[in-house]
Amino acid sequence: MKIEYLLKKKSSWLNGSGPESDIVLSSRVRLARNLKGFNFAVRSTPETSRKAAAEILAAAEKVEELKDALVVEINDISPLDRQFLIERRLVSRELASGDAGVVLIGKKESISLMINEEDHLRIQVLRSGLSLSRCWEIADRIDSLLEQRLDYEYCPEHGYLTACPTNLGTGMRASAMIHLPALVMDGQVSRILQAVGKLGLAVRGIYGEGTRAFGNLFQISNQQTLGKTEEEIIGNLERIIIKIINHERQARHELLENSRLKLEDRVYRALGVLRNARLLTAEETINLLSALRMGVNLNTISGLSPGAVNEIFIHSQPAHLQKMAGNELSSRERDILRARIVRDKLSGLDSA
Amino acid sequence: MKIEYLLKKKSSWLNGSGPESDIVLSSRVRLARNLKGFNFAVRSTPETSRKAAAEILAAAEKVEELKDALVVEINDISPLDRQFLIERRLVSRELASGDAGVVLIGKKESISLMINEEDHLRIQVLRSGLSLSRCWEIADRIDSLLEQRLDYEYCPEHGYLTACPTNLGTGMRASAMIHLPALVMDGQVSRILQAVGKLGLAVRGIYGEGTRAFGNLFQISNQQTLGKTEEEIIGNLERIIIKIINHERQARHELLENSRLKLEDRVYRALGVLRNARLLTAEETINLLSALRMGVNLNTISGLSPGAVNEIFIHSQPAHLQKMAGNELSSRERDILRARIVRDKLSGLDSA
Repeated sequence: MKIEYLLKKKSSWLNGSGPESDIVLSSRVRLARNLKGFNFAVRSTPETSRKAAAEILAAAEKVEELKDALVVEINDISPLDRQFLIERRLVSRELASGDAGVVLIGKKESISLMINEEDHLRIQVLRSGLSLSRCWEIADRIDSLLEQRLDYEYCPEHGYLTACPTNLGTGMRASAMIHLPALVMDGQVSRILQAVGKLGLAVRGIYGEGTRAFGNLFQISNQQTLGKTEEEIIGNLERIIIKIINHERQARHELLENSRLKLEDRVYRALGVLRNARLLTAEETINLLSALRMGVNLNTISGLSPGAVNEIFIHSQPAHLQKMAGNELSSRERDILRARIVRDKLSGLDSA
Repeated sequence: MKIEYLLKKKSSWLNGSGPESDIVLSSRVRLARNLKGFNFAVRSTPETSRKAAAEILAAAEKVEELKDALVVEINDISPLDRQFLIERRLVSRELASGDAGVVLIGKKESISLMINEEDHLRIQVLRSGLSLSRCWEIADRIDSLLEQRLDYEYCPEHGYLTACPTNLGTGMRASAMIHLPALVMDGQVSRILQAVGKLGLAVRGIYGEGTRAFGNLFQISNQQTLGKTEEEIIGNLERIIIKIINHERQARHELLENSRLKLEDRVYRALGVLRNARLLTAEETINLLSALRMGVNLNTISGLSPGAVNEIFIHSQPAHLQKMAGNELSSRERDILRARIVRDKLSGLDSA
């Protein structure tokens, strides 16, 4: 199986299904683990990194979900392919920029194992909709299966030992990518997300730490990894996310009640530009798709599924465009191809 | 014949035909005349205004082109109808805001006589494309026919006497409405129009003196009325306009050569918004139509005629919308109706 294979597939974690999927695009849980008897990956020699990878890959062979998984050594692939895997959220920027990284990608792209990132192993589970508990269950099961064959760094007092102390304990980071266009429109979003911050959660843009919130998309994740069980952390995160969802639903309801026309205007203008532009930057596209997604979820637009919007969102990213073109493209060439692909994908729609 | 009749007609002066009509929308000549033995209209009593109007209307009966003309007394019509006539460029703002004004509108809306404006009589001829000489010929012939029955204020030394000294002499103002999107895009327009100003011509927005230039539309007119013949004034104006046209053609050519995609992007985005928006202000509409007009003239868009763009331009004006609705509309109601009408008129187009 090669990376090209992924291009023809839809990422299952963005298929637009699952609980609350009108607001929550996807849920993600990742567990950080380290192997006993090895230096932490950051201080590792190439030799020991290879050895750690070999041990983890051997252990993974026994996991049913990872049968026929795609194994990619970062050093073997081009910068473009690395970017491609980042855009599909299958690897982190850290793994992609390192030398010793290996990633193991499950068939549905729902599960990936990152090896020799900051920690020796990061188990990632991604699912569509608000599905944090289910992500945790799957990650936990894979973790247990791997632990049968791997000796993790673990101490009864502190839990799993990690390269960075912010991951100590459960080693778990759980997050949801949520779409809050109505709260952005009515200006409430900063207030609500500030409150979320005070509750010990982190709010980020869609490409992780330090990135801006394009397209009214936000990632909410736990900060605390120590002193609580995974179930408690996820329960708390889910409770707060459901509160945010309710705020967004209320804001959407009020928009429909009080500003339906303004909303429709925004949604249809976005559709008009997406279907007609000859040059589209990534940032503009993601912002227009945000309006379109809201229109689909509020039934302002018919004939378009949430999954189709997500597919355009994924395929219009820079590395995806270049993989489709089969070669590297300049920024301008990408804007041209992006506009063409978006037009093609939306051409079947009735505009009225 | 009632004002409503005009609503169903296309203004012949905006049908998109005539010389250089890819750049020159319309040409206009108006002659200012005053009747001997009357005070100038501005100082006139209602009684003498009525008398002046009666004399002019009687004289107009003998003009073939004005058979079956629509005669409208400004005092008899609503503010909305006055605005409607301004939007069709059949009356000036001055006439519409006065008490004693009468307008006589020829069947094709190409000829109108404004009575009791600043001067007793203003003969206006409007035609599509660059057609100043032809406008002048028609105005001159009507003027001569009217003069057979009217005694004009005229002195051999100064020519026709007018209420405002800036009209003295020929009493003629000739103008062309020109569309300069490429010169606006490439930033040359200010320099060129400043040069035009130094040549003794006036540059204005589309609604006359003191108005802004919306939609990349400019009115160029003579300032001088004294000391030259009408033919000389028009010849000079036409020569300069042809130079501007050549600049615009060159700029369009360079856009097509160097920035075809940027141009197409602009044109198709305009089409996308016009075909999809649910709220459209007058100003945005005129600006988007400007891009669309350029696209039609450069064959970037097919299936749409210049005349059709002009028709949308006329019908999307505030008073036109209200006449179509049959009642007064708030600004918001107009924006809704404007968007609907624009959508309807463009719905047949293939967007690809």
